[in-house]
Amino acid sequence: MDKHVMATDADGAQVPDQVVIEEPLQIVIDGHPVAVTMRTPGHDAELALGFLLTEGVIRSRDDVRRIDTDSRDNHALVFLEEGAEVDLKRLTRHVFSASSCGLCGKATIEAVTSQRPPLPERTEFSAEVLLSAPAKLEAAQSVFSRTGGLHGAGIFAADGTPQVIREDIGRHNAVDKVLGHALQAGWNLSQSFLLVSGRVSFEIMQKALAGGLPLVAALSAPSSLAVEFAVESNQTLVAFLRPPRFRVFAGRLAG
Amino acid sequence: MDKHVMATDADGAQVPDQVVIEEPLQIVIDGHPVAVTMRTPGHDAELALGFLLTEGVIRSRDDVRRIDTDSRDNHALVFLEEGAEVDLKRLTRHVFSASSCGLCGKATIEAVTSQRPPLPERTEFSAEVLLSAPAKLEAAQSVFSRTGGLHGAGIFAADGTPQVIREDIGRHNAVDKVLGHALQAGWNLSQSFLLVSGRVSFEIMQKALAGGLPLVAALSAPSSLAVEFAVESNQTLVAFLRPPRFRVFAGRLAG
Repeated sequence: MDKHVMATDADGAQVPDQVVIEEPLQIVIDGHPVAVTMRTPGHDAELALGFLLTEGVIRSRDDVRRIDTDSRDNHALVFLEEGAEVDLKRLTRHVFSASSCGLCGKATIEAVTSQRPPLPERTEFSAEVLLSAPAKLEAAQSVFSRTGGLHGAGIFAADGTPQVIREDIGRHNAVDKVLGHALQAGWNLSQSFLLVSGRVSFEIMQKALAGGLPLVAALSAPSSLAVEFAVESNQTLVAFLRPPRFRVFAGRLAG
Repeated sequence: MDKHVMATDADGAQVPDQVVIEEPLQIVIDGHPVAVTMRTPGHDAELALGFLLTEGVIRSRDDVRRIDTDSRDNHALVFLEEGAEVDLKRLTRHVFSASSCGLCGKATIEAVTSQRPPLPERTEFSAEVLLSAPAKLEAAQSVFSRTGGLHGAGIFAADGTPQVIREDIGRHNAVDKVLGHALQAGWNLSQSFLLVSGRVSFEIMQKALAGGLPLVAALSAPSSLAVEFAVESNQTLVAFLRPPRFRVFAGRLAG
């Protein structure tokens, strides 16, 4: 997933280097292009599925009959089951449309939580399990150490076992890939948690809720809206997870 | 630009903390909502102007008659001059539209460089000036040290003088804000450079070209497409700028 290039260092020496690959993926539903995302090639079907589901464009894994991908031409061709409906109004960011604004201030959270109900109850995880997760994420991130250019995301079981780990140049893409994998596999994520290598924004919490994940942990900082969203959605939000330290911004841990 | 919250640390103690504010900004052109971006409030008119210009939706600062912002309701109301035209097809990411895909593989770079011609010649900057810039960016970033949650971007003159520095929860927003400021002020940026606190992607190089900036420097890694774009656009790309080290991935420095 990286590309060899030549660079010049501060001494003027020519040095071989590697950079992470970034290319556009065009997501096409039944012949209609619906979105372009800049991503690191790989697991494109998972990315497309995770994107469409966590953004609310499709409702269920069962709406999708088939996804054809060909990384050489950077397309993910999604074919829906007969009768499945898409809600393109959900693609609310960087969108031109005649739709009115439903995404302002408090309305954002209300719009989303009314679409996706809060989790029925908080699932509590142990601090020990959370503290063990960053090393597992790092060990699985095959490209990061070489290029310094990738975000990682992982879904972990309640006992700390990694279930799926993906990386991408885009933080949202890495989350879409792990959630797409879980959805494709039909996993129930109510006893699992999500770990992301960077910061945690509103959109990450929103995607986690769409996937039914009760806890999100991040190595770096949360945003104000991520915290508010977590509180309203009954999600637990742990940030600055840098063993032996962490901070809980919403919900609580077991024990 | 940050909000006070209570958090729980690893010892179970309740601690006051601060998180960076993230809220949606709805950009409206002559009454039509065209985009929503999750941003840190502040300098919203600059953000809207920078976004619309660097994404190619409008062609020139002169197309805009007025931008009204009210951070309380998270709207930027853009009013165009009579006869000004907008190109909403440029909003190519996360877009639902009937447009065909012009953003795939090699076509991406061609599409963009055919829209924005490469710079006529490379402007060369000194290594000493570049090496002095990160400390200036850091000193100006007022929020980062407290919350750990913000990206910074700065435009610097060829002698290293900071011209404008902004920060935002979104890396693209920080760049849109400094470019919007420069465009609003009518600056010629052909002897200036852009420094970003994180990584540098294709989109950052594209925005820099739209603003006429000949060099982009980043504290962290570049992507493959950022490097390719810089080569084709006659831009200089310096990454991993961590004094006393850096790496030049496209173009060259003076001396």
